Amino acid sequence: MADSGTHFSLQDINALPQRYRANFVNSLSGFKSSSLLGTTDGRVNNLAIISSVVHVGANPPLLGIIMRPHTAQRDSLTNIKQQGMFTLNHVHTSWTDKAHQTSARYDNGVSEFEEVGLTPWFSQNFSAPYVKESAIKMGLKVEQHFTLCNQTEMIIGEIQEVFIAASSTAGDDIAKSAIAEDGYIDLESLQTSCVSGLDTYHSTQKIAQYAYAKPNVPLTQATITKK
Amino acid sequence: MADSGTHFSLQDINALPQRYRANFVNSLSGFKSSSLLGTTDGRVNNLAIISSVVHVGANPPLLGIIMRPHTAQRDSLTNIKQQGMFTLNHVHTSWTDKAHQTSARYDNGVSEFEEVGLTPWFSQNFSAPYVKESAIKMGLKVEQHFTLCNQTEMIIGEIQEVFIAASSTAGDDIAKSAIAEDGYIDLESLQTSCVSGLDTYHSTQKIAQYAYAKPNVPLTQATITKK
Repeated sequence: MADSGTHFSLQDINALPQRYRANFVNSLSGFKSSSLLGTTDGRVNNLAIISSVVHVGANPPLLGIIMRPHTAQRDSLTNIKQQGMFTLNHVHTSWTDKAHQTSARYDNGVSEFEEVGLTPWFSQNFSAPYVKESAIKMGLKVEQHFTLCNQTEMIIGEIQEVFIAASSTAGDDIAKSAIAEDGYIDLESLQTSCVSGLDTYHSTQKIAQYAYAKPNVPLTQATITKK
Repeated sequence: MADSGTHFSLQDINALPQRYRANFVNSLSGFKSSSLLGTTDGRVNNLAIISSVVHVGANPPLLGIIMRPHTAQRDSLTNIKQQGMFTLNHVHTSWTDKAHQTSARYDNGVSEFEEVGLTPWFSQNFSAPYVKESAIKMGLKVEQHFTLCNQTEMIIGEIQEVFIAASSTAGDDIAKSAIAEDGYIDLESLQTSCVSGLDTYHSTQKIAQYAYAKPNVPLTQATITKK
């Protein structure tokens, strides 16, 4: 099987040293969303980097996150259980270091916002803290919460509100809406980052936006213009 | 709230036209994995682009996918239910058009492999088809399968085997292992793509790989070398 590359069986993977296996398996799922999870216990504002955000549905608007109960994320998980609310905030390519630093195991009662140098911001309608510096901010209410087969916890939140910053194109004086005519949000112009493995951050470069695919019709690129 | 950008409430989102809302909400989750889901009914080999792959755990190695029962993905979902097996295959930046074309609603009995021009490949131990052209191929066995609050279905698979191609660095005669000493797989060197919204594909550019974060210690970049 030389032409299909190095082979790893389940037995091979299970026999890997723990940290090696964590890096290896966390790389297999491909590039991932890099988001900051904002929560509060009403006193301390917590912030945690997560890469497990997954689209669940558009109508109603639902996002899922998967959390490990016994990691640096445990305060955030406790806050979500208590308050039923959390925010998700996109990580900008210029401060991935601050975002990653939230993964340190700070003591109880410490706010990661202060420790890493990001700014908590509150909307009028929502108790959980947003990250002021994030171009896309979402406030979510817990809709479903359950435990998966490996004892990790999945939380599905319904989006209650969204804030989207304008993007500024290089050489352009006027900040443009990042939202295209068809509703697509140009994450690249907003400089949202993505993550691979446990600790590696990336910017992106658009290859193509395709039109709706139909059987037996050559695929074309979309012709959507920005507003 | 001018400094926090355009505001959308849940009511605003629910009032959007269906296609606009689908594009909008699918963009909010950030950059996503672009993977091809390979399945078979024992006769026809199906292939479907999905962007909902999520890391569930490393020990045992588990990945989750979320599927909508009434879309172009329905054949794939039926196959997974019947056979209990599926493959996930990374989409290379040079053939995102072929990958996206699998989202067309082909008739029952049609193989997307043939229609889009990708090659089914089988390992000795696994009944579901892999994509020969993919640098990372994974075979998974269904571990858990359930319905979420919006009637979409989540499938958690245990990784049974993985094939990883060597990456070739420009100007380098020898293909290098894409797996670093610490187990991290260099997806960028393998030219894995990522996706935003429903139809836009991107390549990536590494910003930084960070060392393990600790409280009150300045974050440093990782010093892992490739094998």
